[in-house]
Amino acid sequence: DTKPIKIEDAYKNDPERSMALTVNSEKPFNAEPPLSLLADTFLTPNSLFFVRNHLPVPVVDDKMLKTYQLEASVFDKQDTKPKHVKSLTLSDIKRLPKFEMDATMQCAGNRRKEMSQVKEVKGLSWNCGSISTAKWTGARLTDILKAMGFKDEDFNKKYIQFEGLDVDPTGTPYGSSIAMEKALDPNQCIMVAYEMNGLHTSKKLIIKFMILNYYNVLRTSAADHGFPLRLIIPGVVGARNVKWLKKIVLSDEESHSHWQRKDYKCFNPSVDFNTCDFDTAYAVQETPVQSVISEPSASSSVSADDGYVTVRGYAFSGGGRGIARVDLSLDGGETWLNAELDNNGQSPYKSWAWTLWEATVPIPKNKKKLDLVCKAVDSSHNVQPERIEGIWNLRGLLNNSWHRVSVKVEG
Amino acid sequence: DTKPIKIEDAYKNDPERSMALTVNSEKPFNAEPPLSLLADTFLTPNSLFFVRNHLPVPVVDDKMLKTYQLEASVFDKQDTKPKHVKSLTLSDIKRLPKFEMDATMQCAGNRRKEMSQVKEVKGLSWNCGSISTAKWTGARLTDILKAMGFKDEDFNKKYIQFEGLDVDPTGTPYGSSIAMEKALDPNQCIMVAYEMNGLHTSKKLIIKFMILNYYNVLRTSAADHGFPLRLIIPGVVGARNVKWLKKIVLSDEESHSHWQRKDYKCFNPSVDFNTCDFDTAYAVQETPVQSVISEPSASSSVSADDGYVTVRGYAFSGGGRGIARVDLSLDGGETWLNAELDNNGQSPYKSWAWTLWEATVPIPKNKKKLDLVCKAVDSSHNVQPERIEGIWNLRGLLNNSWHRVSVKVEG
Ligand SMILES: [Mo]
Ligand SMILES: [Mo]
Repeated sequence: DTKPIKIEDAYKNDPERSMALTVNSEKPFNAEPPLSLLADTFLTPNSLFFVRNHLPVPVVDDKMLKTYQLEASVFDKQDTKPKHVKSLTLSDIKRLPKFEMDATMQCAGNRRKEMSQVKEVKGLSWNCGSISTAKWTGARLTDILKAMGFKDEDFNKKYIQFEGLDVDPTGTPYGSSIAMEKALDPNQCIMVAYEMNGLHTSKKLIIKFMILNYYNVLRTSAADHGFPLRLIIPGVVGARNVKWLKKIVLSDEESHSHWQRKDYKCFNPSVDFNTCDFDTAYAVQETPVQSVISEPSASSSVSADDGYVTVRGYAFSGGGRGIARVDLSLDGGETWLNAELDNNGQSPYKSWAWTLWEATVPIPKNKKKLDLVCKAVDSSHNVQPERIEGIWNLRGLLNNSWHRVSVKVEG
Repeated sequence: DTKPIKIEDAYKNDPERSMALTVNSEKPFNAEPPLSLLADTFLTPNSLFFVRNHLPVPVVDDKMLKTYQLEASVFDKQDTKPKHVKSLTLSDIKRLPKFEMDATMQCAGNRRKEMSQVKEVKGLSWNCGSISTAKWTGARLTDILKAMGFKDEDFNKKYIQFEGLDVDPTGTPYGSSIAMEKALDPNQCIMVAYEMNGLHTSKKLIIKFMILNYYNVLRTSAADHGFPLRLIIPGVVGARNVKWLKKIVLSDEESHSHWQRKDYKCFNPSVDFNTCDFDTAYAVQETPVQSVISEPSASSSVSADDGYVTVRGYAFSGGGRGIARVDLSLDGGETWLNAELDNNGQSPYKSWAWTLWEATVPIPKNKKKLDLVCKAVDSSHNVQPERIEGIWNLRGLLNNSWHRVSVKVEG
C-alpha cells in the first residue's frame, strides 16, 4: 500500500508560512493566528490570516498562469457531458468592473476546542482564531457569469457548484455549492477575488516584492489563500469559499464533493456517527452570530491597582447581518454592561466584516478573579447560546456559545 | 381632566371580533388565537389571526374610500415642508402588477408571558399565539414608489417612514421606519397588501359577503388588519408592518413615532427603566429563530396505553431564513430527536412564512410525566437560547427561548 507515501509527497510544494501562526495540522496545513493579535486591526495582515487547507496547496507556475482559465458549464445527472462550456482568462476577469469588499472569513470549526471539552468531537482542534478579515478585490460572480455568455435559461438550475485546483489522492477536486437564488442576488456580494488586502496575486507583483524581500510573506498569501483566484461568498462558512477556483457548474444538484455532502453539516446533540444521516441534513452556509474575548487572555492576570480593565474582542454574524449589541459580564453572566462597538461604518444588512468591540470597566473591589463573559446580538436579534450542550454536534461545527475567560486579579 | 373619557370614546367604532380569540387588552384591542388551533393550518383563518392594535381602529367609510390616497413625500429635519409630494389612489395601486406572498406576522411581544415569569416586564401578557400566517395580495412597495414618479436622488435617503390612519389622543399617527437599503431590495419582498387570504378588503366584497352572512368575519379581517391597505415587511416584527397605511416619507431620519424610537428596542438583562437609553439602542426589525409546541398543551395528559404521542408546533425565523431543523426532547433536553418539517415548499432564503412541524414518538416506559422541549435551527444556523435569563429585557420583547411543555402520562 503506497498511499501514505503519495500523500506525504503531495505536500512537498506547500509554501513557507509565518512563524506567528499556531499550527493545528501540518498536512494539510491548518493554522490560526494568536488571539492576542487577531482583533488588533480591522483587516488581518495576510501573514496572520488563518489557513484552512483541506488538501495539498496546488502549484500554479508561470506556464499554468499564462493559460489559466476559469471554466464554467451546465451539467446535470441526466447529462452525459457538460453543456454550454464557457471560459474566461485571468486577464478577461481583471478587465471586468472591479469590485472591492471588506469581508470576514470564518471556519465552521472555529472554537471547536471548547466544544470538544464538553464531549469529544471529530475535527481539528481550533481555538478562537480560525476567523480573519481582508479587503478582497476582484469581479462580481454575476458579472463573470454574464461575461461568459450564459443565457437566462441556464440560470434556472437550483445550484451553482465550484471546484478548486486542489485534489485528493484520487484526483477528485475540492468542491462546494450554494443555491442559485443566492448566487444571482447582487446584494449577496459574491465575488471572485484576485487581490487580498491590496496584494495582487500575480507573478509580476511577486517579482516586485521579491526585490523588496517580502517574497515569503507574499508567496504565503497567494499560495495558501487561493492564488490566482478565490471565490468569496461573504457571510458564508469558509468551506464554501473555494480557493484556487478553476471550475463553475450550473446544476440542479448540490456539489458531489465530500465536503458538501458528507461533512460541514450539523446534527442534534443526540446524533452520533452510527445514527447520523448526512443525506437529509442541511448543509452549513451562513454562520450564526458569534463573539469572542481576545484580551485579556485566559492565562493572564489584571492588577487591582490599575483600577480598570480593558476587555476587547470581535463579533461577527453571517449573511451580512450587523452586530446590534455586545454584552459583557465580569461576574460569569450575573450582570451585564454594553461594550463599545466599532463596525467600520458597515450597514446593518451588508455587514460582511466583523465588528471589533471594547470596554474599559472598573475592577470590582475585593475580587480575586474576574469571570469575563461576552455575548453578541445581531441585526436580526439572534443571540449566542449560553451553553455548548444544546448545540453540540458530532463534527464540532459552529460553536458560537457565550465566550468565557477567567482572569486573576492581583494586588 | 377629560382625557380618559376621550380615550374611551375613541374605541366605540372598533369592529366585532371572533369569540375564539383570547383577549389580552380590550382598548386598544389585542388578542390571540388558542394555541391548539394556531398550527392546524399553514394559513391562519382571518377570524383567528392575532390582533395587535396600538390605538383605536380608524373608521374607513364609503366616502373616505372614494377619495383614499396613499401619499408619499421626501422630508428631512432641515426641511420646512415635505418635498416631491406624490400620491396614488386605491385603483392606481390595484392596477400595478399583482404581487402575492404567504407571510407570517409575529408580534415582538410573542411569548412575553414566559419572560415575565422570570422577572417582571412591561407589556401585554402574550402567550405563544401572537403569530399568524396569511396569503397577502397587493403591489410591491418598489412598484408603488416607481409609479409615484420618485427620482433616483430621492432614494438616497437612509430611511423610509410609514404612517397609519390610526392616531393617538393628540392626533399623532402610528408610525414606523426601515432602512432604505432594505426597502429598495426586491428580494426583501416588501409589499402593500389589499387582500388577506383572498378576502378583498373592498366594500364591494363586504356587500357580497353580507349576503352570504359572513359580514362580521370579513369586517373583522378588514378593519382590524389594516383595511384598506396594510404594509407587509415579511420577516420583520409586526410593529413595523403599518396597518391602515396612509403616508410614506423618504428621510435621513428614523420615524419620530413613539413606537420606533421609545419602544420595540431590546437592552441587556441588567438594564432597567432608570438606566435604559432608547436613543442609542437598536430598533427591533428582523426577528430571531423561534419555535413553539402547540400540541399537546400544558394542561393536558397523554395515555400510556396509546403507546405514541404526537407533538406538533410551528417554527419561524425572520429575514426570510428557512428552518433547517427542529429538535424535540421528551426528557427536558437530555436527549433529542428530529421533528418532521413542512415548510410548504419555501426556499431557504425566502421563507417568509413559518414551517409547521410534527413528531410521533413512542411514550417512554415508566414515566409519569413528559417534559417536552423544542428548539429550532434556521438556515443561518442560528439557534434559540436555552434560558430566558440571558435575553430578558425590560419590555419583554423577542422571547425565543426553548419552548417547554410538561404533560402527565396516565395509565
Ligand atoms: Mo472550514
Ligand atoms: Mo408587536
